[in-house]
Amino acid sequence: MYLRNHWYVVARTEELGRELMQRYLLNEPYVMYRTEDGRPVALPDRCPHRRYALSAGSLIGDNVRCDYHGLAFDPDGVCVDIPGQEKIPAQMCAKPVPLVEKHNMVWGWMGEPEKADPARIPDFHWMDKPGWTCSDDSRGFDCHYQLVVDNLLDLTHETYVHTKTIGQAELVEAPIEARRENGAVLVDRIVRDCAAPPLFSKVVDFGGNIDRYQFVRFEPPCYIWIDARAVPTGTNDFDKGLQWVVMNALTPETDDTMHYFWGLSRHFAQDDEDMTRDIHEALIRTFEEDSGVLKIQHELIQSDAPGAMGNNINADRGITLAHHLVDELMAVEQAGA
Amino acid sequence: MYLRNHWYVVARTEELGRELMQRYLLNEPYVMYRTEDGRPVALPDRCPHRRYALSAGSLIGDNVRCDYHGLAFDPDGVCVDIPGQEKIPAQMCAKPVPLVEKHNMVWGWMGEPEKADPARIPDFHWMDKPGWTCSDDSRGFDCHYQLVVDNLLDLTHETYVHTKTIGQAELVEAPIEARRENGAVLVDRIVRDCAAPPLFSKVVDFGGNIDRYQFVRFEPPCYIWIDARAVPTGTNDFDKGLQWVVMNALTPETDDTMHYFWGLSRHFAQDDEDMTRDIHEALIRTFEEDSGVLKIQHELIQSDAPGAMGNNINADRGITLAHHLVDELMAVEQAGA
Amino acid sequence: MYLRNHWYVVARTEELGRELMQRYLLNEPYVMYRTEDGRPVALPDRCPHRRYALSAGSLIGDNVRCDYHGLAFDPDGVCVDIPGQEKIPAQMCAKPVPLVEKHNMVWGWMGEPEKADPARIPDFHWMDKPGWTCSDDSRGFDCHYQLVVDNLLDLTHETYVHTKTIGQAELVEAPIEARRENGAVLVDRIVRDCAAPPLFSKVVDFGGNIDRYQFVRFEPPCYIWIDARAVPTGTNDFDKGLQWVVMNALTPETDDTMHYFWGLSRHFAQDDEDMTRDIHEALIRTFEEDSGVLKIQHELIQSDAPGAMGNNINADRGITLAHHLVDELMAVEQAGA
Repeated sequence: MYLRNHWYVVARTEELGRELMQRYLLNEPYVMYRTEDGRPVALPDRCPHRRYALSAGSLIGDNVRCDYHGLAFDPDGVCVDIPGQEKIPAQMCAKPVPLVEKHNMVWGWMGEPEKADPARIPDFHWMDKPGWTCSDDSRGFDCHYQLVVDNLLDLTHETYVHTKTIGQAELVEAPIEARRENGAVLVDRIVRDCAAPPLFSKVVDFGGNIDRYQFVRFEPPCYIWIDARAVPTGTNDFDKGLQWVVMNALTPETDDTMHYFWGLSRHFAQDDEDMTRDIHEALIRTFEEDSGVLKIQHELIQSDAPGAMGNNINADRGITLAHHLVDELMAVEQAGA
Repeated sequence: MYLRNHWYVVARTEELGRELMQRYLLNEPYVMYRTEDGRPVALPDRCPHRRYALSAGSLIGDNVRCDYHGLAFDPDGVCVDIPGQEKIPAQMCAKPVPLVEKHNMVWGWMGEPEKADPARIPDFHWMDKPGWTCSDDSRGFDCHYQLVVDNLLDLTHETYVHTKTIGQAELVEAPIEARRENGAVLVDRIVRDCAAPPLFSKVVDFGGNIDRYQFVRFEPPCYIWIDARAVPTGTNDFDKGLQWVVMNALTPETDDTMHYFWGLSRHFAQDDEDMTRDIHEALIRTFEEDSGVLKIQHELIQSDAPGAMGNNINADRGITLAHHLVDELMAVEQAGA
Repeated sequence: MYLRNHWYVVARTEELGRELMQRYLLNEPYVMYRTEDGRPVALPDRCPHRRYALSAGSLIGDNVRCDYHGLAFDPDGVCVDIPGQEKIPAQMCAKPVPLVEKHNMVWGWMGEPEKADPARIPDFHWMDKPGWTCSDDSRGFDCHYQLVVDNLLDLTHETYVHTKTIGQAELVEAPIEARRENGAVLVDRIVRDCAAPPLFSKVVDFGGNIDRYQFVRFEPPCYIWIDARAVPTGTNDFDKGLQWVVMNALTPETDDTMHYFWGLSRHFAQDDEDMTRDIHEALIRTFEEDSGVLKIQHELIQSDAPGAMGNNINADRGITLAHHLVDELMAVEQAGA
């Protein structure tokens, strides 16, 4: 069960084109493509006639034709052709997903269409912010999306999982501050006078120890921003040293898999293309490490007794707040349904 | 759930011999073989003792021996040997499937044995009809057998799925006539003054446009005959041009797979062996195309909400009549059970 | 459902070391290792915090550290470190499996820990008995453990399954004697004046026909001893000819798989290392044959109607007694729970 009346990232801008693409979102298959003038389209990927995959059909102009019996649908899901038949019944339609393209992402509204409000699209403006340099990517994870939300709301795991990039022993001893604020959950951690982790040292010459800042923000249903900063110890100068924002959009694919869309935007050495590539590759390695851990965790949860829960520790305060927030929204949605 | 008191094709004649063969029919495993004098045998493929596969055992004379503990069964499923034991209890038996061999097919009665009436075997006489030339084959499909029945009862799909062999654009614009008659469903389509589809052109020189006839017949539970003809436009001479009958026996293997047994018998150029081979290969290609479509369709139906149905179009009239016919027979069988 | 208040073999001595090993027992995952002074440890392989696999973590001294968030547990399952947190809640613990190492096997008590009594460990003393030579091994089987118990309680199958090693036609005609005695089931079979089976001939020169003895003993939940002897016909001298004891510990891994731990200890030609190797390899081949049969049997039982049972024959008397014995113990355990 997922929150429905929300925007989910359904694709990165560069993923959609004039080829039909099948993608599962929230357990359901969709066919996605762009119209001739570039507008993104997402329709249920079961033909309303006999449920063959529209994505296995043909893109003809702006319409998709089912290549089993030839029915054609326009970008609004309206059937525009039934071969050999004049009258087209109203129910022969595919309900389109309202889409908006913004910040290099294609956002889909997975609930009641009349409630789709572009103003509610999460703030990913660092993706294309002047003066910042961003690289983005996506990959699949073999786990429930919630496990990745939990992963990012407690960065303690960097010490154990990401020893080669962003992990360091000092992280775990620094207390976190977690709070709920205006429909979001915020988790802050500041580590003072510590060594720089491997990836930081690689891209910035701090000349010694650093103060490290992690400001994590969660917004339902599946968004995490990580504002990461590091400055030479005691300088308190956020414009110097390292500063980046990692935007994470964690869209459920099925109950056992998810799409991980991410962008990292940095505010230093913006024109250094080698650095862009190095950081991008380090992120890919980092998420590969997470992917391995979370696949194991997911399988062990699935094979456990239903309802068996873990035990919380102090570092889980942000996770607990986030779960409560989502539960409240779910209760409201269920009451309204 | 399947109709039981019916004949199903369980094998083509050439498939059975003196080797034990395991085959699933209607979700259950059977061991099949021929006796020394060539009589086909089908027994449940679970030993009545401890359910090991008889098909993994030994064929000794006319009997099959279970090679776990050595129990032997004759072609009637009667236990004829329990090693180390004199008395053989009556319940130690395997209930044989009544079989009849006819028209190059082995027919099995999957219901109450006392109702097995060879007179009810579907009419596949074109398989070995004098003056006709037939080739036959079989393959598996990864879908529920009903999807193939539906596929053959609406040949509109040839236009989209079989563009390289028997499809053509004109087909979809010609109306169909569907009716129920004497326990069968008939669907006729006549296309006048159209181009010949690729396979037709390859095997007959029509010297121009054709009139194309498709007479489709469905009989429960799973038989389709396609009487296909093509003559030079306006000549109305069925003995000239092309005429063939495709017999399709669609036996459920499991709920997700089926056995497709088919024969194509033609009434022209009977002695042209190259043509026999060409047509055979074209049919294999055609069924390969169907197989790909129906596997996708089956998976999307399986993952859909239970009971979610498609919407009918005019071309589905034959399918609807066939579904009603099968539903009626099923209700009668259930009432009797 | 398995008997819980019993000792199960969880590993052979040589399998455990200073590497973390994951093993499923009775459907649940465990992490196993040895402490620095060699004591074997088994803990549930789901971290009590967030259920990540402890076996994917690090062994640090005698403790296992979860490499997701760094929690550490001692061999008693007591949490000894939560990074960044002083207080460790009592429920943050992993319940250890009581283990005893004896006769080259590591025995685990899968029920209420306070009832674990080492005196109840099955008698595998032939594993390291002075004057005897033993070789042991283990492998997985793709079937429910009960099928292997049944397999070993009716050795009739040797005639059909193990024709290349220990099978022979005369076996099936010799009657068995089965009885229940002091919480065990005993099945005896004596074949007089028969040829020696292939493996026997290979390792002993009997100079003619033999008398063959099979004394099989079952103890719940999953132990079978086979005391096998062969002497030149009529000599009745058990100290001459062939004598070995095969100890079989059949531990459920999941409902569909099991761990087969075995040892064969012989009382002749004790110093002949070539013979030790030959017999070991013959056993491996023999169990490979069983494995193939039981995988097929398991699958056919799984796909059969629930509760469908086979029919017993005389040779099943030992199996029937064993099932009754286990059912009685299960009823007692259920009543106590």
